[in-house]
Amino acid sequence: MSKKPSIPKGTRDFSPEEVVKRNYIMDTIRNCFTSYGFQPIETPSFENSDTLMGKYGEEGDRLIFKILNSGDFLKKVDGSAYAEKDSLKMTSSISEKALRYDLTVPFARYVVQHQNDITFPFKRYQMQPVWRADRPQKGRFREFYQCDADVVGSTSLWQEVELVQLYDTVFTKLGLEGVTIKMNNRKILSGIAEVIDAQDKLIDFTVALDKLDKIGEEKVKDEMRSKGIPDAAIAKTQPLFDASGSASEKLTMLRELLASSEVGMKGVEELEFIVNTISELKLQSATLEIDVTLARGLNYYTGAIFEVAAPEGVSMGSIGGGGRYDDLTGIFGLKNMSGVGISFGLDRIYLVLEELDKFPTTVTANTKVLFINFGETENLYAMKAITRLRSKGVSAELYPDSAKMGKQMGYADKRAIPFTVLAGDKEMNAQTYTLKNMKTGEQESCSFEELLNKLN
Amino acid sequence: MSKKPSIPKGTRDFSPEEVVKRNYIMDTIRNCFTSYGFQPIETPSFENSDTLMGKYGEEGDRLIFKILNSGDFLKKVDGSAYAEKDSLKMTSSISEKALRYDLTVPFARYVVQHQNDITFPFKRYQMQPVWRADRPQKGRFREFYQCDADVVGSTSLWQEVELVQLYDTVFTKLGLEGVTIKMNNRKILSGIAEVIDAQDKLIDFTVALDKLDKIGEEKVKDEMRSKGIPDAAIAKTQPLFDASGSASEKLTMLRELLASSEVGMKGVEELEFIVNTISELKLQSATLEIDVTLARGLNYYTGAIFEVAAPEGVSMGSIGGGGRYDDLTGIFGLKNMSGVGISFGLDRIYLVLEELDKFPTTVTANTKVLFINFGETENLYAMKAITRLRSKGVSAELYPDSAKMGKQMGYADKRAIPFTVLAGDKEMNAQTYTLKNMKTGEQESCSFEELLNKLN
Repeated sequence: MSKKPSIPKGTRDFSPEEVVKRNYIMDTIRNCFTSYGFQPIETPSFENSDTLMGKYGEEGDRLIFKILNSGDFLKKVDGSAYAEKDSLKMTSSISEKALRYDLTVPFARYVVQHQNDITFPFKRYQMQPVWRADRPQKGRFREFYQCDADVVGSTSLWQEVELVQLYDTVFTKLGLEGVTIKMNNRKILSGIAEVIDAQDKLIDFTVALDKLDKIGEEKVKDEMRSKGIPDAAIAKTQPLFDASGSASEKLTMLRELLASSEVGMKGVEELEFIVNTISELKLQSATLEIDVTLARGLNYYTGAIFEVAAPEGVSMGSIGGGGRYDDLTGIFGLKNMSGVGISFGLDRIYLVLEELDKFPTTVTANTKVLFINFGETENLYAMKAITRLRSKGVSAELYPDSAKMGKQMGYADKRAIPFTVLAGDKEMNAQTYTLKNMKTGEQESCSFEELLNKLN
Repeated sequence: MSKKPSIPKGTRDFSPEEVVKRNYIMDTIRNCFTSYGFQPIETPSFENSDTLMGKYGEEGDRLIFKILNSGDFLKKVDGSAYAEKDSLKMTSSISEKALRYDLTVPFARYVVQHQNDITFPFKRYQMQPVWRADRPQKGRFREFYQCDADVVGSTSLWQEVELVQLYDTVFTKLGLEGVTIKMNNRKILSGIAEVIDAQDKLIDFTVALDKLDKIGEEKVKDEMRSKGIPDAAIAKTQPLFDASGSASEKLTMLRELLASSEVGMKGVEELEFIVNTISELKLQSATLEIDVTLARGLNYYTGAIFEVAAPEGVSMGSIGGGGRYDDLTGIFGLKNMSGVGISFGLDRIYLVLEELDKFPTTVTANTKVLFINFGETENLYAMKAITRLRSKGVSAELYPDSAKMGKQMGYADKRAIPFTVLAGDKEMNAQTYTLKNMKTGEQESCSFEELLNKLN
């Protein structure tokens, strides 16, 4: 093969610098999850097709990567599908496994499968890659990590409170101060549909409302009209478009608008509890905001809906989202298992941290010190010091070949290794090491202990 | 769907306890890799099929999981293959991507693709899952992690020395003392084939010799005979079967046996350098042993060959292995790039640590303290303390529902949470917390600072 190799479109290689930065984000989130009592699980990269298919709608089914059966996969193929050359019909007979599309359905499958071993309420987190056969574009990949924390088996609103705190804790720890946690409640959306007498149009209504940020008030109303929502009904929703001010002003508006809707008032009550409790507990750096237009397009939410916006001035879609869903595990036959969860958008968080230059300088893949290679005898002397340094946690290397000094120093420079050690005859006789600071060019003679102190 | 969901055979769900233990092993290895100057990379889970196919032999090709093309995959299918219903022929036209089979070929592809951005010698490590459509059996999975450290771009034997030290460091850090690092050299195997005049039978000869541990001397000789190696030649190899004693005795034996073979003597010289240097530098807990029968069946090794055996008394295959290969990247058109690397067998290391009870007790997914839920007002008091505890790194939870005391205590027990806090009216008035040790049943009244001290 002579042409340069490549990787499939929509996938990525990660360089050392990128891996280290990604691990820093994941480790930070993991530590926060742990302090909140969430426990990690991992599920297989591929699931049986019937676990995944039909769970994400028709479009989702199309975007799931299917794995070809091993061996003579055509042997079992359906005769008529084969004759018709119908890809769609043939898929299920030549493919029984598929790559996971998200972490939520595998989690639901896990809970049902292991329900007898799990102590509920079960607080789990999961950070694993998922795959989607989406058209690749800027910021959208065919392989990417999801990072989810969910609690199942409790309807307590204290979970929602905790999840707001968790967002605040994670983003504060990452140095990403000033994020906005937007919150809504599906019951409020249902209540609005009720008071404007458009229950049958709930989805159309929320999908349109969700676009307010992007397309503006008039176009949202146009879309509602085009979906058959009468002008009189749309007029009743005007307070939603005019909503502004503090959480308590918004709650007052909602209480008036939804007075006649039981489900709507339940939603207001839930929002209010969360807002009031968070204001008692206080957040470190994030702001909690009621956003009555927030719907996140996902029909499985039944209570709270969350979405996190990056700090002002950073143009980036949401960096996190989630909500409560009352029937996560119903699809696998386990009823009445309410869940609530949030997710973190790793790739976008990475981009925001880059843009704001918030990665700590200690987050680096660099070796701390390179010992120059002067030949076999000197190398043994160097290697003894390197072995001791490593055992003290200092990352240290010997240049492996006895190349010219310039080449070795060039290697240290290119790798951005901050220190080199020169140890030849003179140093060996004196049992010392000459430490060179690669930035300033300064050199000094050190004992091993001095070397360790300076590098540690 | 009413039947209990399941996962594909050969795959695994990992429970919180398992994930935490696996992460402990990976974090330990990662820290050692870093201190040795290895840098992490990550490659996509799937590669273009032509990157993987043909790199692992016919059997390997068969075991690679292929991904079905998206959309109307039959449109592009080869007409005659379709007419013949030939699975093998059709595969390449309906599948263009495949799941990675190991980390070595993707690494070679990465090096060639990014050669202009890499500073050589390049010390990289990689810990990612791989997939093989193997028949699942005890200890063999269809999805498992590999964990590799390699250096490319240098022929220096100091790399081999480092890799022996690295094995020693990792297993010592994991508390797995007493592993044996077996070492051989492909040049020695070539030299033996040369002196017994059976160069054309090198593979047959080494494959047979590699089985000595498992099938014994006589059966190895039978196999050599059956492959057409003459008795006189086999007789000359008798010193290999009799080899015992110290490294220096084995080196003496090899020097006599291989005196007439240039390549053989080069192998002896390499072994000797590594043995002598390691004996100067000393290992912490592992033993380095020359094993002249070690071949690892892999034809791409050209120099050192390594394999690690678990401590005596543990019946487990090798828990690590590796070696030098002189032409890793040649398959992608980049010549003369020598590499040497080792890998760690994560699943087996896990089993050995379990068997020897070597996981530290601190490696647990448990929350440290559960606050009992007494109702809304008390919860706010509890949550303020929990928030402060978490910010100090103590993992803490509030039981989310106001259930009966017995149920809440039962939850703490089942989750093996070591402490609970009871904070009702009395505690709120006194601004204290009643801390209960779940093991001893002891209760004591604490201020927040006392609570923090006891839990931290």
